[in-house]
Amino acid sequence: MSAPIEVWAQQVRAGEVRAVSRAITAIENHAPEAEDLLKKLFPHTGGAYLSGVTGAPGTGKSTLVDRLAAHYRKAEQKVGVVAVDPTSPYTGGAILGDRIRMQSHAGDAGIFIRSMATRGFLGGLSRATAEVALVLDAAGKKQILIETVGVGQDEVDIVRLADCVLVILVPGLGDDIQSMKAGLMEIADIFVLNKADREGADRLEEQLHAMLSLVMPRDGWHPPVIRTVATENAGIDALAASIEKFRVHFESSGEREKKQREHWKNRLLGLLESRLLEQVLQGAEGEKKLDRLAAEVSQRKKDPFTAVNELLSATSTTK
Amino acid sequence: MSAPIEVWAQQVRAGEVRAVSRAITAIENHAPEAEDLLKKLFPHTGGAYLSGVTGAPGTGKSTLVDRLAAHYRKAEQKVGVVAVDPTSPYTGGAILGDRIRMQSHAGDAGIFIRSMATRGFLGGLSRATAEVALVLDAAGKKQILIETVGVGQDEVDIVRLADCVLVILVPGLGDDIQSMKAGLMEIADIFVLNKADREGADRLEEQLHAMLSLVMPRDGWHPPVIRTVATENAGIDALAASIEKFRVHFESSGEREKKQREHWKNRLLGLLESRLLEQVLQGAEGEKKLDRLAAEVSQRKKDPFTAVNELLSATSTTK
Repeated sequence: MSAPIEVWAQQVRAGEVRAVSRAITAIENHAPEAEDLLKKLFPHTGGAYLSGVTGAPGTGKSTLVDRLAAHYRKAEQKVGVVAVDPTSPYTGGAILGDRIRMQSHAGDAGIFIRSMATRGFLGGLSRATAEVALVLDAAGKKQILIETVGVGQDEVDIVRLADCVLVILVPGLGDDIQSMKAGLMEIADIFVLNKADREGADRLEEQLHAMLSLVMPRDGWHPPVIRTVATENAGIDALAASIEKFRVHFESSGEREKKQREHWKNRLLGLLESRLLEQVLQGAEGEKKLDRLAAEVSQRKKDPFTAVNELLSATSTTK
Repeated sequence: MSAPIEVWAQQVRAGEVRAVSRAITAIENHAPEAEDLLKKLFPHTGGAYLSGVTGAPGTGKSTLVDRLAAHYRKAEQKVGVVAVDPTSPYTGGAILGDRIRMQSHAGDAGIFIRSMATRGFLGGLSRATAEVALVLDAAGKKQILIETVGVGQDEVDIVRLADCVLVILVPGLGDDIQSMKAGLMEIADIFVLNKADREGADRLEEQLHAMLSLVMPRDGWHPPVIRTVATENAGIDALAASIEKFRVHFESSGEREKKQREHWKNRLLGLLESRLLEQVLQGAEGEKKLDRLAAEVSQRKKDPFTAVNELLSATSTTK
């Protein structure tokens, strides 16, 4: 808040931890300076590779992400980790978790870890996650890992930010949980069979291959199944190699550019929405009118469509 | 489509299954006639009581909802069931499920069951669910049960539609799944401990009570823990009695009206958003412009904020 935006942006680009942290907090709080900062940072983004890691609770996502991060650090690539947990809409218990996770990378300035939980009900979690990824990108992180619980539309939206989507499965989570595969099947670029030393791993891998054999490969890419035991650091090198192979494959096929354009189209729509709402509801008057109309609709004195038309016609946004 | 809206609305109000089905399909497809119909139906809504039922996969939601529906049918109350599954964003496998579920209520015109999956990425699932509930309400269903998988923002939004929120837990789903409780804790009006004949049920109930003892009751309501074994129809009467107790409690405290006003405020905001977007992006020109801007942003020729300002200034919606 004290430093002018230009200085702040330079500090972020230099990877200064406090400047990056402040930027993320500004994004989370929807602070007005966040936009000015992102404008300055934007031309310096696009250098990072984003991997989205998703899977049901209990699949060992955090451990896997930690090991992958350590792998990249060994190769001297700077890493950013964003852990998103929309299952805790009311509690902000993210900070403690970050501290615990940071300990295994203590003293390493080349890695930045941040958790985000849902803030408010008017959505915006995937938007905030995307903006945080931009900040880490501008801060020179070459590998950005976005981790999220694998259920629900929010998670799908968040995972769609990524260049490469990893879906984690583990043996023995029960039939109902395995049925989640149906929804995640189509967005997975790589399947990770974690806890592969457990009973049932072979059967799960067979089932996966059977399902995959029914799916058309997208642009010549057949999602591989990589077996890992993240807690023992087993299979992590193979996983990183698979991510790299996917990157090369898609960059040569031009698919990444198409995905990026689609991505930005959705982001622009989201931004447009917030802007338009701000215009219509600006100031206390708009809020008050909305409250009054909501009460009338609630009492069935007015239908919701008529109420919205009133909001629209009363503002300068309609001709 | 053939019958004029007025006739259609009358058929819906009379509870005619085909008219209700057509109304729901129109809502799902975002058909223009859906709005006209809802306008006609709206003054005749408000008579239904909405219970939201949520819980992780594997907790036995569908069975519980079926048993609760059967309980209400025995008391000769008309029932509507909306099963929402946002975990399957790409597949529309809802129809088969409906047929299977309807079989246990075969020939009973007093119950209507419908599944909904996610359509498209620009959201709208909670809006569609809310509109379907309005149709069922207008069709004379006194008890509407909305069932959804208990993770993610979508589900929270959907569950917030309800007058009463049931959160289902089962023993032995593992620590990670139990940690979901943290997020659902605050929205639960009643906890259902299903599969209560399983090992670990007592311990789970103790844990729940311990957690609940730390939470402030809302307007004098302490969320009870009801033990059920839905597959054996055990505990269903107690659950229905608890829902009724909650209804009476909240109707006398005036909290329901407040909740309804809040609910309609959010709904009006959602509607407003769609309307505004339609205005700005009307026709092929708007879409084309959006595509062009998305490509420019993707290539870092323009930052996203500048791009959105261009969209805004080019339309009649800004002065």
